[in-house]
Amino acid sequence: MLHYSNYLKQTLAILLVCFALVSTAQPSERENYKGKTPKYIFYFIGDGMGLSQSNAAEAYLGAIDDKSSIKQLKLSTLPTQGFYTTFASDRFITGSAAAGTALATGHKTSINTISMKPDRLTPLKTIAEIAKEKKYKVGIVSSVSIDHATPATFYAHQPTRNMYYDISLDLSKSGFNYFAGGGFKHPEGDGELNASTKNSMSNFGMADGKEIEIKKPNSISVAKSRGYRIVNTVTDFNNLKKGDDKIIATAPNLAGGSALPYYIDQKNGADISLAEFTQKGIEILDNPKGFFMMVEGGKIDWASHANDAATVIKEVLQFDLAVEKALEFYKEHPKETLILIGGDHETGGLALGFAGSHYKSAFGLLQHQNISYEGFSSKIAEYKKEQKENAKFSDGLKLVKTHFGLGDASKGLELSTFEMQQLKNAFEKSINNNKEIKKDDQYYLLYGSYDPFTVTACHILSHKAGIGWTSYSHTAVPIPIRAIGVGAELFNGFYDNTDVPKNLMKLIE
Amino acid sequence: MLHYSNYLKQTLAILLVCFALVSTAQPSERENYKGKTPKYIFYFIGDGMGLSQSNAAEAYLGAIDDKSSIKQLKLSTLPTQGFYTTFASDRFITGSAAAGTALATGHKTSINTISMKPDRLTPLKTIAEIAKEKKYKVGIVSSVSIDHATPATFYAHQPTRNMYYDISLDLSKSGFNYFAGGGFKHPEGDGELNASTKNSMSNFGMADGKEIEIKKPNSISVAKSRGYRIVNTVTDFNNLKKGDDKIIATAPNLAGGSALPYYIDQKNGADISLAEFTQKGIEILDNPKGFFMMVEGGKIDWASHANDAATVIKEVLQFDLAVEKALEFYKEHPKETLILIGGDHETGGLALGFAGSHYKSAFGLLQHQNISYEGFSSKIAEYKKEQKENAKFSDGLKLVKTHFGLGDASKGLELSTFEMQQLKNAFEKSINNNKEIKKDDQYYLLYGSYDPFTVTACHILSHKAGIGWTSYSHTAVPIPIRAIGVGAELFNGFYDNTDVPKNLMKLIE
Repeated sequence: MLHYSNYLKQTLAILLVCFALVSTAQPSERENYKGKTPKYIFYFIGDGMGLSQSNAAEAYLGAIDDKSSIKQLKLSTLPTQGFYTTFASDRFITGSAAAGTALATGHKTSINTISMKPDRLTPLKTIAEIAKEKKYKVGIVSSVSIDHATPATFYAHQPTRNMYYDISLDLSKSGFNYFAGGGFKHPEGDGELNASTKNSMSNFGMADGKEIEIKKPNSISVAKSRGYRIVNTVTDFNNLKKGDDKIIATAPNLAGGSALPYYIDQKNGADISLAEFTQKGIEILDNPKGFFMMVEGGKIDWASHANDAATVIKEVLQFDLAVEKALEFYKEHPKETLILIGGDHETGGLALGFAGSHYKSAFGLLQHQNISYEGFSSKIAEYKKEQKENAKFSDGLKLVKTHFGLGDASKGLELSTFEMQQLKNAFEKSINNNKEIKKDDQYYLLYGSYDPFTVTACHILSHKAGIGWTSYSHTAVPIPIRAIGVGAELFNGFYDNTDVPKNLMKLIE
Repeated sequence: MLHYSNYLKQTLAILLVCFALVSTAQPSERENYKGKTPKYIFYFIGDGMGLSQSNAAEAYLGAIDDKSSIKQLKLSTLPTQGFYTTFASDRFITGSAAAGTALATGHKTSINTISMKPDRLTPLKTIAEIAKEKKYKVGIVSSVSIDHATPATFYAHQPTRNMYYDISLDLSKSGFNYFAGGGFKHPEGDGELNASTKNSMSNFGMADGKEIEIKKPNSISVAKSRGYRIVNTVTDFNNLKKGDDKIIATAPNLAGGSALPYYIDQKNGADISLAEFTQKGIEILDNPKGFFMMVEGGKIDWASHANDAATVIKEVLQFDLAVEKALEFYKEHPKETLILIGGDHETGGLALGFAGSHYKSAFGLLQHQNISYEGFSSKIAEYKKEQKENAKFSDGLKLVKTHFGLGDASKGLELSTFEMQQLKNAFEKSINNNKEIKKDDQYYLLYGSYDPFTVTACHILSHKAGIGWTSYSHTAVPIPIRAIGVGAELFNGFYDNTDVPKNLMKLIE
C-alpha cells in the first residue's frame, strides 16, 4: 500500500511537471523536445491563405448548408493551432519566394530569392533535402506549376523565382521521389543564357560553363535522363502504384501559368484534383523509412490577388480535400504521423465584413458565380474581339447575369443604381482598354492590373456577400498554422515562419 | 538498479501519455481536465481587437524602433494560442453584447442582448457570478463606460445593451468587489419608464413594480446605499489599498461616452491608465481565496470603427501595458494564476496591406498623428462654427498637416494629386454637412457616419502606412486567444467563443 502510494506520488509529480510543460510549450523550447520522431510528415501550405480565406470557406459552407453559421473545414479540426509572422529580410509584406524559403529552410531571405541567403549567393539547405538525407522519401505537390516559387523553395536554390528554367533543372537534380500537380513554365529555358543557367548546366555536366553559346537542353529531357518518368494523362496517373519512384505527374489539362485549372472552371472527370495528387503521393511514397510530403494549394493566392471570393473559397475547399486525405492516413498511423497546415502569407486583405453591407453577410450568394475571374476575363476579351466597335453595355450585363448572377432578382442579386454605374464605368474601361485610358491612382484602386469589368463584377458579388478586400497584393497579417500528431505540440504559440522548419528539423534530427 | 529501471520505464510511459495528451489537448476535451484550479484569473478582452489590430501595433513598434520588422507585444509572448469563432445566434457578424454574452456565459445570444438567452427573457449566469459564488473576489475593469456592453455582460442581465440605467442598477446589485475605468452613461435613467426598469427597481425593493409613475433613483446613489464607494479623483484612487472593498473607481476625466480619453488625447499625469486600474485591481482584490478580474480595452473598437489606425495602435499598446501588470503578477504566482487574452470581434476589416501602397509598408508614418479622430472632428466642428461661410480648404490643409503630418514632405508625407482631391472633396462635405448633401451609397463607403474630412485624413494616413480598411462595422474573422498558467492548455485549438467561459467554468468548478 505504501509502495502504491509512493508510485501515485511519483506519478502525480510527473503529471504536474507535464502540465507545467504543456502550459509553456512553445517552439522556442523545441531544444527540450524529447518526444518521438514522426515517420510520416505532411506539410501543407495554402498560398495566400490567411485566417480570413479559410474562415470565408467555412462561412460559405455554413450558408449553403442553411443550418449553421459556419461548417468547419477539416483543417480547422486539428487540435494544435498557432500562428506566425511572415516578413521577409528586406520587406515587411513578404512574397511567395521569401516566405517559401522561410518555411522550407528556417532562414529569412530577400524578396524573390529561392532558398538562398539574402545575398542571393549562398544556398540554404531545405527541410525536404534534410528529410531525404534521413532516408525519408520526398514528395512535392502543388496546384500551380511545379517550378513555381513555393514548391521550388523545397528543392531549388536560385537567386530569383523568375529563373524557371534553372529551377526546373534543380528539380530533377534533387532526386526527390514524387513531383505532382502543375507542369513546367519554361522547360525549354527562356531569354538569354545567364551565368546562373550556365552554372546549373555545368553542374549537371552537360556544358562546361564556358562563355560560349550553347544549346539549352529541355529540362524535361534532362529529368528523363536522370531517371524520372513523366506522367501526364489520367490513365497513366491512375496506374501509378506503390513502389513507383522518381515520378513527375502533371495535370492532363493545364491552365494559365501551367497550373491546374481553377476548380470552378474544371470539367467533370477530365482533371486530377489536388486531393488525388496527394492521395497518390501517399501510395507511392509509403515505405518502411517514412516520407515527407509538401502539398501546396497555390491558386488560393492567385484568386485572392484578383479579389475573386467565390474562386478563392472553392480553391480552399479543394485544398481542404487534400488535407482530408492526410487526415485519413493519420487515422491509420496516429502514432507515426505529423500533419502541419500553414500558409505563406495572406493575399488581398480579405475581410469578412464590408462597409456597404454594414453588419450583413450573405455568403450563399457566392454560389451563383460559375466561372473564375480568369475564365470571365477571357470571355470579355473574346467578346471585345468579336464586337469591335459594336460592344454594348447590355451585353456586358447579360454576361455578368449568366456568370455571377448579378442583376438576377430571383437570386437576391438586384443591382443598385450605384452598382450599375460601377459596372458601366468598368465595362467602358474594359472595352476601350487598348485606347488611351488614364491609368492613374484611382484606376489602380478600382481595378488593379485586372480586366476592369471582371474585377468589378468580383467586387460587387464579394460586397453583396459581405466580403471586403483592401489590396491586389499580399498583406502582412500573421498566418495560422494547424498541427496534429507526433511533435504537434511544438507548433502552438505565436512565433516566426522560420520556426516552422526549425521545429521540423529538430523533430527529424 | 532494476527498481530504478522500472521507475524510468514508468516515468517514460507517463511522459508518453502526457505528450499524447498535449498533442490532442483542446477545449472539447475539457471534460477530461484533471489539472489544478487557478486561484487568480485574469480575463482580458480587447474590444474590436483581431489579429490585425495587435499585429499592426507590433509592426508600428518595430518601425519606430527602426531595428526590426516587428516588436512583440507582451500579449504575443503567451505560450498558448488558439482562435475562436464569434457569430451571434441571429447574425454572422456579432456585436459586443452578443459576443460579450458568449464570452461571459458560454451561450450564444441575439444581437444587443446582455447575458440573457436569445429570447431576451431568461438570464444566463456569468463566469464572474460563478466565480463570486466560489468565493473569488471579482473585478470588472474597462476603458469605456463601466455600463457598456462588454463589462455589462459579466454582471448584468438585460434585454438590450441600450438600457444603460437598468444595467447600472444591475452593477451594484452584483456585489462584485471592484469596478473601474470609465463612468456611467445614464445613472439618472433616461427615457420612459419601461417594464424592465420597473422590474429592476422592484428587484431592489425601492418600488413595487406597479404601473404608477415613480421617480427613478440615481443609480450611483443606489450603489452607495448598497455599500459601494465611488472614487473619481487621482488622489483618492492612489489611496485605495489592499482590503478596500466594493469600490467603483472611475476616471477623473471622462471623454465622450463616459469613457477614458483616448491615450493619444490624454494629458500627462491627469489621467489614470487602464494598466493603473488593473494594477489597483490586483492590490484590492488579492486575498487568500483568489480573484477573477475582467479587463476590457474598449476603445480599440471605437477607433477601428472610425478607421483611425494611429489611435487603434495606441489603444492596443495601452491594453498591452495592462496585460503586462497581470504578467508581472503571474511571475510571482506562476502556479496559481491563469491569464487569458481574447477579443470579442474584429472591427473595421483592418488589413496590413493596401492596394494603393502595393507591397510597401511604412508604419512609422503613423507617429506623426497627434490626435484621435474624435479630437480632430471636434476641431473641425469648432472651425466650422467660427468660420461659417468663410471656411477655406487651405485652413483644412493646415489642420491635417498639424495633426496628421499630411502634406509635410519632411516627414515623408507629401500628398499626391489624388489624395489632395480626396481631401478637398471631403472638406467640402464636412463644411456643408448641414446643407443638403446627398448621402448615397458612395458617400457611406467614403465616410461612413464620420466627419468626412476627419475620416479621409485617417484613411490617407492609413494608406500611406500600408494599412487598408474594409468597413466601419465589425467583421467576422475568428479572434485569437492567448493563455498562460494554470489550465492554459485548454485554450489551444480552434473553437467557438462560447467555449472560453465553458473551459473557465470547468476550471473553477
